[in-house]
Amino acid sequence: MEKIQAGLVQGTRDFGPDVLQKRKYILNIIETQFRKYGFMPLETPAMEKLQTLTGKYGEEGDRLLYKILNSGDAFKDIKERNIGRKIEDIHFPINDICEKGLRYDLTVPFARFVTQNQHLLTFPFRRYQMQAVWRADRPQKGRYREFWQCDADIIGSNSLFCELDLLNIYHEVFSQLNLHSYIIRLNNRKLLYAIACHVKNSDSIETIAIALDKLDKIGEEGVRKELSSNGFSTIELDKLFDIINIKGSNIEKLQNLRSLIAYIPEGEIGLNEIEFIFNQLNSAYKQLNISFDISLARGLSYYTGCIMEVIISQADSPIQSSVGGGGRYDNLTEIFGLKGMSGMGISFGLDRIYDVLDGLKLFPDEIKPCPTKVLFCYFDDMSQTYAYSALTALRDAGISAEIYPDITKKIGKQIDYASSLSIPFVAISGTNEINTQTFMFKDLESGKQESLTISQIINLLKK
Amino acid sequence: MEKIQAGLVQGTRDFGPDVLQKRKYILNIIETQFRKYGFMPLETPAMEKLQTLTGKYGEEGDRLLYKILNSGDAFKDIKERNIGRKIEDIHFPINDICEKGLRYDLTVPFARFVTQNQHLLTFPFRRYQMQAVWRADRPQKGRYREFWQCDADIIGSNSLFCELDLLNIYHEVFSQLNLHSYIIRLNNRKLLYAIACHVKNSDSIETIAIALDKLDKIGEEGVRKELSSNGFSTIELDKLFDIINIKGSNIEKLQNLRSLIAYIPEGEIGLNEIEFIFNQLNSAYKQLNISFDISLARGLSYYTGCIMEVIISQADSPIQSSVGGGGRYDNLTEIFGLKGMSGMGISFGLDRIYDVLDGLKLFPDEIKPCPTKVLFCYFDDMSQTYAYSALTALRDAGISAEIYPDITKKIGKQIDYASSLSIPFVAISGTNEINTQTFMFKDLESGKQESLTISQIINLLKK
Repeated sequence: MEKIQAGLVQGTRDFGPDVLQKRKYILNIIETQFRKYGFMPLETPAMEKLQTLTGKYGEEGDRLLYKILNSGDAFKDIKERNIGRKIEDIHFPINDICEKGLRYDLTVPFARFVTQNQHLLTFPFRRYQMQAVWRADRPQKGRYREFWQCDADIIGSNSLFCELDLLNIYHEVFSQLNLHSYIIRLNNRKLLYAIACHVKNSDSIETIAIALDKLDKIGEEGVRKELSSNGFSTIELDKLFDIINIKGSNIEKLQNLRSLIAYIPEGEIGLNEIEFIFNQLNSAYKQLNISFDISLARGLSYYTGCIMEVIISQADSPIQSSVGGGGRYDNLTEIFGLKGMSGMGISFGLDRIYDVLDGLKLFPDEIKPCPTKVLFCYFDDMSQTYAYSALTALRDAGISAEIYPDITKKIGKQIDYASSLSIPFVAISGTNEINTQTFMFKDLESGKQESLTISQIINLLKK
Repeated sequence: MEKIQAGLVQGTRDFGPDVLQKRKYILNIIETQFRKYGFMPLETPAMEKLQTLTGKYGEEGDRLLYKILNSGDAFKDIKERNIGRKIEDIHFPINDICEKGLRYDLTVPFARFVTQNQHLLTFPFRRYQMQAVWRADRPQKGRYREFWQCDADIIGSNSLFCELDLLNIYHEVFSQLNLHSYIIRLNNRKLLYAIACHVKNSDSIETIAIALDKLDKIGEEGVRKELSSNGFSTIELDKLFDIINIKGSNIEKLQNLRSLIAYIPEGEIGLNEIEFIFNQLNSAYKQLNISFDISLARGLSYYTGCIMEVIISQADSPIQSSVGGGGRYDNLTEIFGLKGMSGMGISFGLDRIYDVLDGLKLFPDEIKPCPTKVLFCYFDDMSQTYAYSALTALRDAGISAEIYPDITKKIGKQIDYASSLSIPFVAISGTNEINTQTFMFKDLESGKQESLTISQIINLLKK
C-alpha cells in the first residue's frame, strides 16, 4: 500500500468534538428562534445545475463557483467535435464538461425551490435553512471555502411585519448568545435610489452602492475618488456626502433626510417604511440595537426595500465585518419564471459568529466535547462483565455512559482516559464490588468517592 | 432577464418542511443514542483531496466519485504541455484538472482525520458523524446521488465490548423507531478466511466474499456458477455450501461450524469472538434480534473481524436491502501512515430508513411541517399592531407563533392559511378585543372558541 499524506483541502476544516459542540450550541439557538417565529425547515442539495447558479452572483461569483466534472468521459464531446485540431486552437467551454456546481448561497436554491413548488406551497411561505455553502475564495481570517449560512425568509408578502419579525430574530439570537454589543445597521434601497436621483440620476444607484459598500474600508476620501473616476462632479459628491454624513439619533436622521429627499416618491416611501419600523419597535417593550445607517448599501443587487447588516461593535471583537445581513427583494424568483413574489430574508454567518464568541470567550463552560457522564472502570474481565450490565441500566435511564473497552494492567489508565475527556464521574468495580453489588463512585473534580449501588448512582445523576 | 427552467440535478432532492421534519425525527433518535453511548461528534468537509479518496472504494468507487474542476484556468497546464498536438492524441488525466472530490463515505475522511490528529486525540476515540455523501450512481429506488450516512466508530481498541456497544445501538435505534422487525445479520471475516482455507485456499477469500455478497440476489445456483467460472471445482463448491447451508439456532450454527473449521486458527478465533458476543448478550436482559449468518460477506475489503448488516424482515417493507451495516477493521488508517489502530464502526442509511418508515406508515402523527402553535388574525391595522405585541409575549414564553403579515379583506383567508399549515389555534382581534384587551381564541380542530387574555392563552398552551 502506498502511503498517502493525510491532509485537508485548503480553506476547509474538520470540526472535531470540541468545536462542533460549540457550533451546535450556536445553531441550536438560531434554530430555536427561527421555529419560535414560525419558520419551517428546508434543505436543498449541495449540487445545483450550473445554469441555476451562473449569472446570479456577478462576475466574481461565477469565478468563485465550484464546478463538478461530468461523470463518464467528460471530454468525449469536445474530442469528437475537434478531431484533427491542435489543442491550442481549441476553446474548452466549461459548460460542456461541467453541468453541476456547488451551492454558493442559500438564497438562489430557495428561489429555485419556491418556483418549482409554487403550486404545493402555502404563501406567505416562511422557511429557514441552515447549510454549508462553498466559494473558491482566497482563504483568510474569517473567510473559508466551506462555511455555513443560516437563513430565514418570508416570501409572498409585502408587509413590513416581516421586517419586524426578522429584526426581532436578530435581537433574540444575539441576546441569547450574550453578544449584547450587536448593532443592526438598517437602511432602505428606495432611499439609495432617491439619493442617486437627488445627487445625479437614477442610473447611478449601482455605482453609488458599490462605492458606499467600501466606505468602512477606504473612508470618504476613497469613495469620493472612486466616484470621481466614475464621472461624479465635486458638486455631486458634496451633495452625496451632505446626506451620508447626516448625524444624530435615528429619528433626527429620518427628519433631516425627509427634508432633503422626500420630494422624490421612492424617497418618501423608503422614509415611511423606516419610520413605520421604528414606530412599531418603540411601542414594543424590547430595546433593539438598531442604527439607521444611510451609508449602508449591501452589494447584492436583488434587494429592493429594507436592507440590514449586523456588526459586533466591541473593539475587541475578532471579526469587525458583518456577522449577518439581509433585506427585501421583489424579483428574486423572476429569473425562474415566478413573478410578483416579494420577500424578505436574513442570514446568519455561523463561522464568523463562532469566531466572535471564541475570541470574546463567550461560550458557556458547560459545553463539553464528550457527552459521557460516567465511565465504568474495572480490574478484570469478571468485573468488566459485571459493569457492562450496570452500564446498560444507566443508559436506559437516559444517562450518557461508557465502559473502558480494553482490560488494562493499571486502572489509572482508565481514569486518565476519563480525565482527558472531562468525564465527570467514574464507577469502579472489582471483586469487592461484585460481592456487595455496588460500585466505587468517584467525582473526578472533587475527588470525593463513595460506595453506591447502580440505582443510587442513577438517582444521584437524575437529580 | 433570460428565464431559466427551475430544476434539480438528477438523483438529488429538496427536503421540504414535511419531509425534513421526519428526517430530523430519525436523526434525533440516532444522535441521542450515539451520545448516550458516549460518542463525540465530528464533521469533515464535503470536499477532500482526490488522492485521499481514490483507490479506497475499488474501481467502481473511483468511477462514482464526483470530481471538482480546479479553479482558475484548469486546462492551462495540459495546453502548455501539448502545444502543437492534435486533440485526439492527447490523454486528459483527470488528476491534472481536478484535485478535489466530494466525500464518498464517512469512513475514509474519519481515517484521514484520526491520522492527522493522532497526537491530539484520546484513544480509544469514539466519534459519530452524520453527514451527506455523494455518488455518481444510477438513480433508482432507495438509491440517490446525495444521501446521508450516520456513522459511529470506536478506534484504538481491540475489545469486543465495542461490538457489544454498537450492536446495542442498532437495537435501541430501531426499537425507538418502532421498527421491531429489524434483524442484525452477524458474521466474522475470520470465519470467511477459515472457510476459504477449508474449501480451497486463503487467496480465495475475496472471490468467495464477492460471490456470497450476491447470494440474496442470484441464489445458490448463481453463486456456484460464478465461483465455478473462477476455477472452483464441484467438490470445493459442495464443501462451501455444506457450510453456508448450516441451519438452526445461532448456538447450533456455532457448534456445527466449530466441528468443521475450528482446526484452522483464524476459524477458532472467529468462532470465539461470535460466541463471546452471544454469551454477553444472553446474560443481558435485552433481547436483540441477531442472526448469525455464515453467508454474510460485506463487500468492503477493509473489514477484518466481526461484520454486521441490518435488514427489515417484514415482507411489506419497501426496502429489502440493508438499512445499515458495519464491522471491525484493523488497518483502516494504515494507508495514511498510522498503523496498529483497530476499530469498529457501524453506519445507518438515513434515506433508506426514511423510505421504510414512510412505506410502513411508522412516522408519529405529531410530526408537523410547521412549528407554529398560534396564528394571530385581525381585521385592520390597529388590531394588527395590537396583536403584534401579544405575539411577542407569546414567543417570549417560548411558544411558536406568528401573525398573518398582510392585511386582507376577509379574515377567512388568514384562517385558511392556518388550516393549510395545520396550525392548531388562531387568536383573532378587532375593535372589541382591543377594548377588552382580549383575543377570540379558536381551536381549529374542534371549532371551539372563547375570549381570553394573552396571559390566559399562555397558561393554556404552557400546560
